[in-house]
Amino acid sequence: MASSTGDRSQAVRHGLRAKVLTLDGMNPRVRRVEYAVRGPIVQRALELEQELRQGVKKPFTEVIRANIGDAQAMGQRPITFLRQVLALCVNPDLLSSPNFPDDAKKRAERILQACGGHSLGAYSVSSGIQLIREDVARYIERRDGGIPADPNNVFLSTGASDAIVTVLKLLVAGEGHTRTGVLIPIPQYPLYSATLAELGAVQVDYYLDEERAWALDVAELHRALGQARDHCRPRALCVINPGNPTGQVQTRECIEAVIRFAFEERLFLLADEFHSFKKVLMEMGPPYAGQQELASFHSTSKGYMGECGFRGGYVEVVNMDAAVQQQMLKLMSVRLCPPVPGQALLDLVVSPPAPTDPSFAQFQAEKQAVLAELAAKAKLTEQVFNEAPGISCNPVQGAMYSFPRVQLPPRAVERAQELGLAPDMFFCLRLLEETGICVVPGSGFGQREGTYHFRMTILPPLEKLRLLLEKLSRFHAKFTLEYS
Amino acid sequence: MASSTGDRSQAVRHGLRAKVLTLDGMNPRVRRVEYAVRGPIVQRALELEQELRQGVKKPFTEVIRANIGDAQAMGQRPITFLRQVLALCVNPDLLSSPNFPDDAKKRAERILQACGGHSLGAYSVSSGIQLIREDVARYIERRDGGIPADPNNVFLSTGASDAIVTVLKLLVAGEGHTRTGVLIPIPQYPLYSATLAELGAVQVDYYLDEERAWALDVAELHRALGQARDHCRPRALCVINPGNPTGQVQTRECIEAVIRFAFEERLFLLADEFHSFKKVLMEMGPPYAGQQELASFHSTSKGYMGECGFRGGYVEVVNMDAAVQQQMLKLMSVRLCPPVPGQALLDLVVSPPAPTDPSFAQFQAEKQAVLAELAAKAKLTEQVFNEAPGISCNPVQGAMYSFPRVQLPPRAVERAQELGLAPDMFFCLRLLEETGICVVPGSGFGQREGTYHFRMTILPPLEKLRLLLEKLSRFHAKFTLEYS
Repeated sequence: MASSTGDRSQAVRHGLRAKVLTLDGMNPRVRRVEYAVRGPIVQRALELEQELRQGVKKPFTEVIRANIGDAQAMGQRPITFLRQVLALCVNPDLLSSPNFPDDAKKRAERILQACGGHSLGAYSVSSGIQLIREDVARYIERRDGGIPADPNNVFLSTGASDAIVTVLKLLVAGEGHTRTGVLIPIPQYPLYSATLAELGAVQVDYYLDEERAWALDVAELHRALGQARDHCRPRALCVINPGNPTGQVQTRECIEAVIRFAFEERLFLLADEFHSFKKVLMEMGPPYAGQQELASFHSTSKGYMGECGFRGGYVEVVNMDAAVQQQMLKLMSVRLCPPVPGQALLDLVVSPPAPTDPSFAQFQAEKQAVLAELAAKAKLTEQVFNEAPGISCNPVQGAMYSFPRVQLPPRAVERAQELGLAPDMFFCLRLLEETGICVVPGSGFGQREGTYHFRMTILPPLEKLRLLLEKLSRFHAKFTLEYS
Repeated sequence: MASSTGDRSQAVRHGLRAKVLTLDGMNPRVRRVEYAVRGPIVQRALELEQELRQGVKKPFTEVIRANIGDAQAMGQRPITFLRQVLALCVNPDLLSSPNFPDDAKKRAERILQACGGHSLGAYSVSSGIQLIREDVARYIERRDGGIPADPNNVFLSTGASDAIVTVLKLLVAGEGHTRTGVLIPIPQYPLYSATLAELGAVQVDYYLDEERAWALDVAELHRALGQARDHCRPRALCVINPGNPTGQVQTRECIEAVIRFAFEERLFLLADEFHSFKKVLMEMGPPYAGQQELASFHSTSKGYMGECGFRGGYVEVVNMDAAVQQQMLKLMSVRLCPPVPGQALLDLVVSPPAPTDPSFAQFQAEKQAVLAELAAKAKLTEQVFNEAPGISCNPVQGAMYSFPRVQLPPRAVERAQELGLAPDMFFCLRLLEETGICVVPGSGFGQREGTYHFRMTILPPLEKLRLLLEKLSRFHAKFTLEYS
């Protein structure tokens, strides 16, 4: 360090010097992180919104953010029961108000009893409030047709992302050829690639089969694993079900085949899911049920409630080594605890009103309305895109995303390359500038070389979604003509 | 990898095999993480509580958790105004209720207007809701006597911990002798040591001067830095003010000296504070004001409100390289956004009711009552401990922690060593078993070789605190006698 002292003094005399922390000197792993869902296209969308507010003339009057699965931002109303109970928890003075149903009050009292000092403002234990972990375990048991779940294997988290990062952190070890490799689907949700980059692990891509509705093919897993073993040590396999960004739901047969593959190849399974790898694993019996290591993630942002802002989530670990599980708890404890309001919300999601409760009828009606509208939107999306020449879209089965494939004319691809942009990024940027529609290019999630996609949520209100789909299809036709 | 295939097949045949993820094979950096605040002593406290519930006889009737700064868990009531506004935000149906003051309703409407879909359930932008960042900037300006703060330099976070980890992540680079070194105070809050271990950075200890009320001495910074430069590349200096666990407040002179040191030695400054390094930095003028890089952290768990469970926090960065700042935003975007209820709460903390608002009188009365009680508790703690032979305690100035020093007799030290325990861990475990008082041994925070301490929060209600202090002092006397 001594050599820099002279430069330093001189710089101080001149009153000018380089920053201590610069792009060149910073953490190289962080520099390699990419996260398209909130990348340059979203930055540009923000700027356009600002310009619109300032009265700048545009060919559109509003930016439609179909880039992120954020249901309530798109106008979905929160489920009344969830918010009633939460308000009671936040401000227990309301427990004496006649304006809340009795079951909402009972649920709030039950949650507050389980909080330190009977307040959401106290820290919880790092793994989450015990009562809520027990409720999550019971929810998992119901979901899995009675297969037992142990609350001690359930850890609450700050959204699913937090828990996924924690489990990946445990797995990372080695240097050079022994570095941990992690198999992830392509296309993938970029939390995975970002986290692996940050941790210095090796990302091992396996491709989903677009021709078969984004099916997960075990032969492709074998191919990816075989190639990866030349330069790293694969230790884990990530599955996203329903797919994100691709929206498909894996079949039971596929899940069984994936479990067998993971077991035989000694891979830790990470399942980011509503549906249950655990149920299938347990029903497969020995040697899988008692041995295959699995972490299964869920969050309050998924499903009918769409409560993204609360950042509630959990992971259930199955067959995890007890000492490693202790280490996981230790690691979680450094961050003290997940946000307690998010924990409370998760509790309500996993144990909604029972048929005999006063809130049941309204709760059920609201939930069904959301689910019915999502189903209609999924159908509409698939239909409009598949009618448009040069766009094709697999069925949107269990998620709020579609991942249509677009044909881009060779001249558009060339023009993008001249601009230093991925061709689908070029398409999405032009789409945004001309229509105000914000979607994320497929290159941000990964895709087969030479194919182009974008991820679009199906969350805008039905009539707005119809207009959006038609506008997008027309833009694609115009874009294709322009570059033909 | 091929060599393990035979073993694997055999193990599969026998239906038994080693886990994929074991203690030996897991991330070695994670294994090295230690976090005493929620370590073995807290685990034991949990077990004791369970035993008490099961009716097991103990020499005490309850476990008193003085291990963590968790005000509401210790019975402190939330500030009414904060919870009213939050309840309105959570359940906007309440906006038509006559039972909320007008200013609370206006504040809730203002926050909801700034949320996606006017709901706390939508994601915010990754750096936090723009309106709240602006409110934080205005709060910082008021705090600093008008020195400007730019909302674009304010990033909201999941508690302060999250933001501290993010900034440390940016700084970590290099291998071997060029690995990033980070100076941290000893005693320290173990988030720092835990994070540096996890990131593979070098922890560089500088000792606070217990004889001078835990003062930060620049000569000691020079010593620590000089030694560190032999084996790593020191790039950052962390200051905790008021001290945690030590509770002292640094003087203006000290802050100036630290800034000059950081500037001359080219260290990025991280200040975990209520008080303002930024104000001092700006008032020092050139070359410091325009160049010294600083990140200053704050959270809703600190101060009179004690809203720990909401995990609200922020960091303000000063003089950070613009490209690095973009990288920081990118890194934050991978986790989508901090919990929105915590952001809303932070907004209320930084912009409390004005004197003309209907809620002002009650807000002010509640706030002053909390602060007055904390001051009384700080005084009482210092007094009782300093009257006890073999215990000494520096003034508790600006935090909710005390860090008293205890004399332990040589035979107790030997006994601890036989048991493989740090001597103060041995003392604290015995204290817990015999009195139910849970405090954290000084060894969990670091301390000068041969000295022993514990961290104790001063948060229990005043009368309970008095009993606790007396019980603890008596236990120490008995312990000393037993081992003399």
